[in-house]
Parts: sequence; structure tokens; C-alpha cells
Amino acid sequence: MERKRFNDMDCSVARALDEIGEWWSLLIVRECMLGATRFDEFQSGLGIARNVLTTRLDRLVELGVLERFPLQDRANTRGYRLTPKGEELYPVLVALMQWGDKWLAARGKPPLRLVENLSGRPIEKLSVRSKSGHGLSYKEIRYEPGPGATASTRAMIESRNRRVFKQ
Amino acid sequence: MERKRFNDMDCSVARALDEIGEWWSLLIVRECMLGATRFDEFQSGLGIARNVLTTRLDRLVELGVLERFPLQDRANTRGYRLTPKGEELYPVLVALMQWGDKWLAARGKPPLRLVENLSGRPIEKLSVRSKSGHGLSYKEIRYEPGPGATASTRAMIESRNRRVFKQ
Repeated sequence: MERKRFNDMDCSVARALDEIGEWWSLLIVRECMLGATRFDEFQSGLGIARNVLTTRLDRLVELGVLERFPLQDRANTRGYRLTPKGEELYPVLVALMQWGDKWLAARGKPPLRLVENLSGRPIEKLSVRSKSGHGLSYKEIRYEPGPGATASTRAMIESRNRRVFKQ
Repeated sequence: MERKRFNDMDCSVARALDEIGEWWSLLIVRECMLGATRFDEFQSGLGIARNVLTTRLDRLVELGVLERFPLQDRANTRGYRLTPKGEELYPVLVALMQWGDKWLAARGKPPLRLVENLSGRPIEKLSVRSKSGHGLSYKEIRYEPGPGATASTRAMIESRNRRVFKQ
């Protein structure tokens, strides 16, 4: 089945999904954040076929989300770790986790708690916020053209603001 | 191609991806946040085949992410809108958008700016934060068992904290 590319859409969500919207990619990134570095660790963490894992790891390296590095204790074997681009997917993963915790956890009981190591206190719930710190729903947010807006983005923004704010 | 279900993994990220990890689902949710309600609006916004769109919309209704509602100006025709479960995907979409803006936007120029309607000020960048408000990388976060932790979750957590904090 041929994957449609969203890259031609003038939208950062579409571009992001084009890179990491494939089923396994975010779970591989999750494994890195769980400390996995070796092929076998990814494989046992995910229960994924070796050939599929190889393809996905190669692709994530090609996209600059992962990089290979020499493993100290095994000559000639390289592990995988997140680049800064990959590390910055953490808010995406935590937002997915918190949504899953609220709406999908078995018997409403989340399996994990994330706490700040230094203070021992749970992290904040991720939310879209104003500069003054209060939470905002998408209905309180106006879209404006950014520096990369094309004519079709501008038309989309106008129609969006009209529809959402019923002007 | 048969989709693997992640639902048996004891992980809210996996469960979330199981529901909305399909390529089109988050883009349909994005269209709702752009004010789309009618089938034709989704279709023209996404350039998606009608049969694929029908399947995805039905599935999102079944999952409780969307609901159908009667359109005021067209008897017998129903539109689609987000449920609270769907609206709460906004942080996921904004996190993806901000990551795409930073790493993938054409010529480094984001197409959109999101501003609080009331103040006219740009929204905050989403980040994983401590209770006291500072940003945290995944390396500063300790995982602990939540109320739904199984034995395998506990083993994963121990191994994760040992690997990430090199204890």
C-alpha cells in the first residue's frame, strides 16, 4: 500500500506526520526515551520484525531523528540515539501519553507517572497556553499568516477564522 | 496491509497511536479545528478519496473522537464535530505543528502563527514542564508506576530509570 505524502500540504502538522506519522516511528522514539540504544533492545521492547525495525531505524537516521554511535563495550557494533531533532519530539509523546492516560487507559488507570527527578514532583499536564499561562482551547486561538504563508495558506486562515469565530 | 494493534502494549502512547496513529486521523481532527463540519469541506481540505474519508470519519465517530450533528441549513444532512475527547487532541496537534515548524518548514519559515484571540499575543511554545514551570528534557524525568502499572510495566520502569540515570 503506497503511502500518500503530505509534504506538499503547506502545513507543519502534515509535514511532521509525513516524517513520524508512520506507526512504528514514535514508538521507536519512545524506546530511545526509555533508554534503548541497541538493536536487540528495540526489538524486545517493541516485538517488531527485525527487517521492519531495520528499515524504520535506517529511515529515522536518514531523517536526522536518530544517529548511530559506537557502543563502548562492543567493538564494531553501533547503537542508536536521539539527535536534538529527535529529543524535541518529547512534547508530542507526552501529549499522546496524557491523552491516552485520560481516554484510553485500562480501567481508567494510567500505567506510568512521570516525575521531575530533582524534586520528585509529577510533571505538569501539557496544555496549549497563553503567554500569561492559562489554558486555551482551539476556539480561543486565532490563526494568522506566518513568514512562510502562501496564498493558499492565507485563504485557509481567513476561512478558518470566519468559520471558528462565526464572523 | 494489516495494521498491527498496539493496544496490548501496556502503554498510553501505544494506545493513543492505536486510535489516532493512522495517517489521516489527525489531519481530519486538524480540519475540525479549522472549522470544517461538512463531508465536502473535509474532502476539499484534505484531497482524500471519498471512500477513504467515509471510512475514517465512521471510525473516528465509533472511537468517540467525532460526533455527528444535524446541519442547520440542510435538512437530512449531518455534519461532524469534535467531542471533548477529540478536542483534547489539541496539544498533540500543536506539539506536532511546533516541531514541524522548527525542523521541517520550507526555508525555515512556518506558514502559521497561532495567537490568543483575546490578547492578540502568540501562544506559548509547548514544553514538558515541572510544577514550578521550567522545561524538562526526558533525561530529567523519572518514571514511576502509576495506578494501572502491571508487573511488566514495573520491570520496564526499573530498567528505564537504571539506563537513563546510569545507576
